[in-house]
Amino acid sequence: MLSQPQIDRQNPFVMVLFGGAGDLARRKLFPALYSLHRNGWIHPRFAVVGLGRSARERQEYQSIVRESVQKYSRLDTDTEQDWAAFLNRFHYVSLDVTEETGYQQLKQEVERLEQEWEIPQNRLFYLAISPRLFGDVVSRLKKVKLTETNGWRRLVIEKPFGHDYPSAKALNDQISQSFLEEEIYRIDHYLGKEMVQNIEVIRFANNLFEAMWNNRYISNVQITASETVGVGERAAYYDQAGALRDMVQNHILQIVTMVAMEPPSRLKPEAIHDEKVKVLRSLRGWTEADVAKRMVRGQYTAGLLNGSTVPAYREEEDVPPNSANETFVAGKWYIDNFRWSGVPFYFRTGKRLGQKATEVVIQFRGVPQNLYFNKNNDLAPNLLVIKINPDEGLSFQMNAKKPGGEMEVVPIAMEFCNNYEEGSPEAYESLLHDALEGDRTFFTHWDEVSLAWQFIDPIRNIWDQNDDSLCFYEAGKSGPQEADDLLFKDGFSWNTPQRLRSHSVVQGSEINSKP
Amino acid sequence: MLSQPQIDRQNPFVMVLFGGAGDLARRKLFPALYSLHRNGWIHPRFAVVGLGRSARERQEYQSIVRESVQKYSRLDTDTEQDWAAFLNRFHYVSLDVTEETGYQQLKQEVERLEQEWEIPQNRLFYLAISPRLFGDVVSRLKKVKLTETNGWRRLVIEKPFGHDYPSAKALNDQISQSFLEEEIYRIDHYLGKEMVQNIEVIRFANNLFEAMWNNRYISNVQITASETVGVGERAAYYDQAGALRDMVQNHILQIVTMVAMEPPSRLKPEAIHDEKVKVLRSLRGWTEADVAKRMVRGQYTAGLLNGSTVPAYREEEDVPPNSANETFVAGKWYIDNFRWSGVPFYFRTGKRLGQKATEVVIQFRGVPQNLYFNKNNDLAPNLLVIKINPDEGLSFQMNAKKPGGEMEVVPIAMEFCNNYEEGSPEAYESLLHDALEGDRTFFTHWDEVSLAWQFIDPIRNIWDQNDDSLCFYEAGKSGPQEADDLLFKDGFSWNTPQRLRSHSVVQGSEINSKP
Repeated sequence: MLSQPQIDRQNPFVMVLFGGAGDLARRKLFPALYSLHRNGWIHPRFAVVGLGRSARERQEYQSIVRESVQKYSRLDTDTEQDWAAFLNRFHYVSLDVTEETGYQQLKQEVERLEQEWEIPQNRLFYLAISPRLFGDVVSRLKKVKLTETNGWRRLVIEKPFGHDYPSAKALNDQISQSFLEEEIYRIDHYLGKEMVQNIEVIRFANNLFEAMWNNRYISNVQITASETVGVGERAAYYDQAGALRDMVQNHILQIVTMVAMEPPSRLKPEAIHDEKVKVLRSLRGWTEADVAKRMVRGQYTAGLLNGSTVPAYREEEDVPPNSANETFVAGKWYIDNFRWSGVPFYFRTGKRLGQKATEVVIQFRGVPQNLYFNKNNDLAPNLLVIKINPDEGLSFQMNAKKPGGEMEVVPIAMEFCNNYEEGSPEAYESLLHDALEGDRTFFTHWDEVSLAWQFIDPIRNIWDQNDDSLCFYEAGKSGPQEADDLLFKDGFSWNTPQRLRSHSVVQGSEINSKP
Repeated sequence: MLSQPQIDRQNPFVMVLFGGAGDLARRKLFPALYSLHRNGWIHPRFAVVGLGRSARERQEYQSIVRESVQKYSRLDTDTEQDWAAFLNRFHYVSLDVTEETGYQQLKQEVERLEQEWEIPQNRLFYLAISPRLFGDVVSRLKKVKLTETNGWRRLVIEKPFGHDYPSAKALNDQISQSFLEEEIYRIDHYLGKEMVQNIEVIRFANNLFEAMWNNRYISNVQITASETVGVGERAAYYDQAGALRDMVQNHILQIVTMVAMEPPSRLKPEAIHDEKVKVLRSLRGWTEADVAKRMVRGQYTAGLLNGSTVPAYREEEDVPPNSANETFVAGKWYIDNFRWSGVPFYFRTGKRLGQKATEVVIQFRGVPQNLYFNKNNDLAPNLLVIKINPDEGLSFQMNAKKPGGEMEVVPIAMEFCNNYEEGSPEAYESLLHDALEGDRTFFTHWDEVSLAWQFIDPIRNIWDQNDDSLCFYEAGKSGPQEADDLLFKDGFSWNTPQRLRSHSVVQGSEINSKP
């Protein structure tokens, strides 16, 4: 997590960036480094060695960095910047990741930079490349002794971490030969999002919420992560992965653990991690009948989205015309422990839905039936909505007298908009910072990955054996009817995500802060 | 309470208005009648007989009504209105309230209007006159048999209802000879305010709040009713009454009962009334030492208010230069029942304070000491602020991650602004409507008045015997230090009222209302 700027805690470092001119580097990592640098959130003595297959002059690489920052940075880069000082940190080595020669050259470059910048061999290896290369790269880093250092060494890897439990375990075994578990930073960029990180603050810095955070007061939890985009250029990968692996095994499960975990003994990575693992262990498992009853998979057909016709998934480029891959998953999970017994955790995620929205909804139990204003049992529930995207903020839905006269009870919303004047830090900014600080709170540990796959694999297996499990939804709508039915059967319904009305910045300092 | 428009429930009526050309009539009652009429919230067949000492032509009286509405109505009266149709309902009878002759003429006029408008003898007697005349007027109304009717008869009276328990009882005995208790509507205009009426909805239409509404979760309650104005033209009355009688015995105590009452069996006037009486009966009483410890009375000295110098209370016109009257009262009360045991109810009210604000603050218990973000025991508390005036709305203060990067915890506020596009109905609109509907929910019943005086009288007596109990505060500040100390001693402090940041109207219909 981003902590108070304390320059002495932040070490000088060399970042070794595989996929150094790739899409992720350009769109996310360069802008993140730029922000961290400009805000003084990383040590001023650092260097980056970008790696790629193509031969490139250093100057060419620096131009790529500069253009990327100018295009994607949330900060205003038009003002007079010391571009030279920033770009001066970027170097490039051409390397075929499967050939040892390049690694030797990389090693020389890293050591040279460490001397030049007086960096005590703190090395961050960032693998922004295809997962199938992870094992190879890590072995070779060890072989050329780049992983032997007097400072710290850390490995940052991107998803997916395997495609099921066995493949994840094989990958982990391989990586573990070169890096200790505590040196491995598995990125789940959802954990870098402002409002996801806020979940623990909301829960543990507010006695009122913590007191309510259990099955006596909460009737259900709803997680929505809906996208309007289709598969785009990732079709080949996506058609193999599917929404279950792409979104649920990682992001959705991580959000569930953050919402559901017990208060840890301390707010330290290991203590938090232990509580998250306990949640994963408490998830109710699957029989075939359970999967049919509690899980929904869907695929989009052609439809109308924001006024344009969009094709069916099966008509997308690189998608087989008979693909049974899911682009939507919804489900109902139970966490069988004292706190959550009987409280369904619903989630839904998919592509080509009518609305782009990521949010967590905590629905509280209703007023007793037939009482007072609830004579017709139609009183709206109390909802705490943690809005993650596109708005960042909080909304609490409650009932009040209708403004303006009539004694009519209507749902109203108290809102807080988190939007920061310069735009919230990107998830990658926060996560890269944390990796450089050695804070693993918002990274996924191996046993989380492992338990997540073991929870997900049975669903995958049952679905793969039965194409009939696939249902369809029209692009531009809110998903298949089956996903709505999941809740209807229990007497609930999905909260329809709303945009925040107020977009004003609320600064803490304006508020009386002392008790 | 204003209910859904149902014309058939609203009866044709004649309103007999004593003080028919007085200040209250002009500023509040005519505009209220106008709004109710224009919104269709009262029966279209009604008539008003204004009474006053001066001789006036009917036309002259109608001009007064029209001018008052144009000056004070919250509605836009510039549009083409059927003024004639509205003014046609207003009549005037000149009467000396202490002489019987005028009452005979009044009776003839009322009966004539009932015939003319086909009104079934429904009569609302509204006493917008000095309280010392109440008894006289009511006796004479009975004597000329105006109170003998085939329809309903109701008496609306303004505060103050006595100046202590014995005087209030004497007055009540007198009135009771002509009207039954259920026919008497004692106005406390605070009970007509939108957000005061909202208290019961907030509590009883939101399971989350009702579950929290007790001493396990609430650490203290704070009621602030601060004014910037001085005594103005009311000095002669006010110097006799003081803030304790003028504000505390009625408004503050009424708010306390609405915040503290148990859920009634039904949301009906009598059931609510019974619960309010229970609260009054549970208030911890007084010894002389208690008054010194738990009550503060203050008087303003000269000071600076909004950039202008304002004189001390003792320098105001009509105030004796040695007056020991209080213009400020603060206190700490306990409600000794299972729900509220140990929870202090603080209040403060006064004139010539730095800020005009009426609000109720529910302060929830804090996060355990030394835990997590509360290492320095400086985490701000959770507060639910019910904003009554000048803003109408709700604000929930909680802790969250500081927007924009650093993992710093700051208090933020979720807000809801109740402000209605045309301006909220005035308290008098709501109360007049309720009196015409026969709904006594937001009127003060005799046993409430009686218990309130019995609770207040000991304080008054002790203060009156000891001028040293008076402390002083500079005009334009937040009141005497002693009022702050009341809370400091308990480890709390007053919430400083904040204006709502968002002034947008939030309409219930924009929100998903179905569970």
